[in-house]
Amino acid sequence: MTRYFLGIDGGGSHCRARLTNAEGVVLGEGRAGPANSRAGFEPMIQSLSEASNEALAAAGLGAADLGEIAMGAGLAGISRIGIREKLAGLALPFASTRFDSDAVIANLGAHRGEDGAVLILGTGSIAHIRQDGRSYSIGGYGFPISDEGSGAALGLSAMRHALRALDGRTKPTPLSAAITARFGHDTARAIEWMDNAVPRDYGSLAPVVLDYAEAGDEIAHAIVEEAARHIERFIETVFQRGVQNCSLLGGLAPRIQPWLKARTVARLSQPEGDALDGALYLAGLRLPAPLDRG
Amino acid sequence: MTRYFLGIDGGGSHCRARLTNAEGVVLGEGRAGPANSRAGFEPMIQSLSEASNEALAAAGLGAADLGEIAMGAGLAGISRIGIREKLAGLALPFASTRFDSDAVIANLGAHRGEDGAVLILGTGSIAHIRQDGRSYSIGGYGFPISDEGSGAALGLSAMRHALRALDGRTKPTPLSAAITARFGHDTARAIEWMDNAVPRDYGSLAPVVLDYAEAGDEIAHAIVEEAARHIERFIETVFQRGVQNCSLLGGLAPRIQPWLKARTVARLSQPEGDALDGALYLAGLRLPAPLDRG
Repeated sequence: MTRYFLGIDGGGSHCRARLTNAEGVVLGEGRAGPANSRAGFEPMIQSLSEASNEALAAAGLGAADLGEIAMGAGLAGISRIGIREKLAGLALPFASTRFDSDAVIANLGAHRGEDGAVLILGTGSIAHIRQDGRSYSIGGYGFPISDEGSGAALGLSAMRHALRALDGRTKPTPLSAAITARFGHDTARAIEWMDNAVPRDYGSLAPVVLDYAEAGDEIAHAIVEEAARHIERFIETVFQRGVQNCSLLGGLAPRIQPWLKARTVARLSQPEGDALDGALYLAGLRLPAPLDRG
Repeated sequence: MTRYFLGIDGGGSHCRARLTNAEGVVLGEGRAGPANSRAGFEPMIQSLSEASNEALAAAGLGAADLGEIAMGAGLAGISRIGIREKLAGLALPFASTRFDSDAVIANLGAHRGEDGAVLILGTGSIAHIRQDGRSYSIGGYGFPISDEGSGAALGLSAMRHALRALDGRTKPTPLSAAITARFGHDTARAIEWMDNAVPRDYGSLAPVVLDYAEAGDEIAHAIVEEAARHIERFIETVFQRGVQNCSLLGGLAPRIQPWLKARTVARLSQPEGDALDGALYLAGLRLPAPLDRG
């Protein structure tokens, strides 16, 4: 018997969990570090466990209750070869377990399980479509071969421009000065940074690029406009698949949306719930009306 | 007393060594794997040793002769923080040792130690300038923050275009089909490839891009033209520094040169020697006339 639902959102930068009863009332929440298979399968499982255990503890549940919990988790990087098989091989104590991608739960949450699409713009960029019984994603193959229009792509373009400004191949601007100031205007330190940089580090430069683009910096403007072109094309592709509703999600969405054409923005719809709502839907929780958590 | 000169070219994909007598007559040569500090200091030293030992063995020299050898080595990635200090701390048995970057020895070789510049287009891209007592490089900070116009940059652009063609964001072309065929047209396999891909792997796609560009493929054409624009700008920057002679070097140079403007190509000069000649110059070997090795 399923008395509880556990939804997990395992993303590349952090992992969140939410536990509810069968009426969708939240009993506990939890949080942990990154849950991306690229950093290894075991660390990913560790993050999922930490976030789940925190949610269970907050709800006052213990080992005896696990068999009454239906679990649903959306994981970044689940599409990597071999990951689904490894997940299927886990001996988990829950009444049921469902794993899918982080994009799938974002979609389920945004459209309450109805047909629709999401374009998630964060460190990476990925679209997910559920339409006429098909469920699939576009993009999101990882940095640097994919993730056009993402925070990491904005940050990488800024780094490249800034280093060329520093060595005289292009004209310095306030943005390039702000970027190279982070390395004391010393390319050797920029190289050292790069040697250990993960996509999130590149993405951390995205707000700087947007700040300078909004202030009229020429290079920043060009970088953001190129990202916007990729995002427009992404959204067009989604609607060409027959989708009626598409929501723009992710940390970059609020700041990049003003750079899109008004006619594109007019086609987008507000999400009805978040990725954790989607994970709970994946777990099996069905609620009669849209959630309103303020 | 210096009876022999040992020149070493330690690059990102392989390491070569050449041993001569004081008249520049080649007594032996050697070859080993990559010598890039990014993969670790010890593996780099290992490659240098292997190539050197092979050259010494070919010349019939042994431990008793090491004190009569002047060594000069150009190393990829020597500008990484801490590497020069570590090299200075090595206890080497030679009469003298000189380390500098791979770009420096390419320049010394191309212009026989006279003022001049080189633009090296291989897996990466870097310019090196020796002018009025100054010696410095432009670019070459590494992949993906730098190396515009390089083989790795061509390959990365091709991958990105190909994946977007596969998911419908852009029109497939013969190039995109050739690239995705390498992964059975399966993005999951492309992601798996990327997880372990080093710049050289991206660079291995460059000849394919050039093949299709020459055959008129629209995407390949655009990718090569973008690289050519970066290279033109690179060459302009070099001449703006007051340089009289600039040579285009590296594995990509012969194939990308036809894509440059004729007026740009007309400004370039043929190299008088190769990077190993430059390493021997660095070691102290001075020859009266240009080498002619056919």
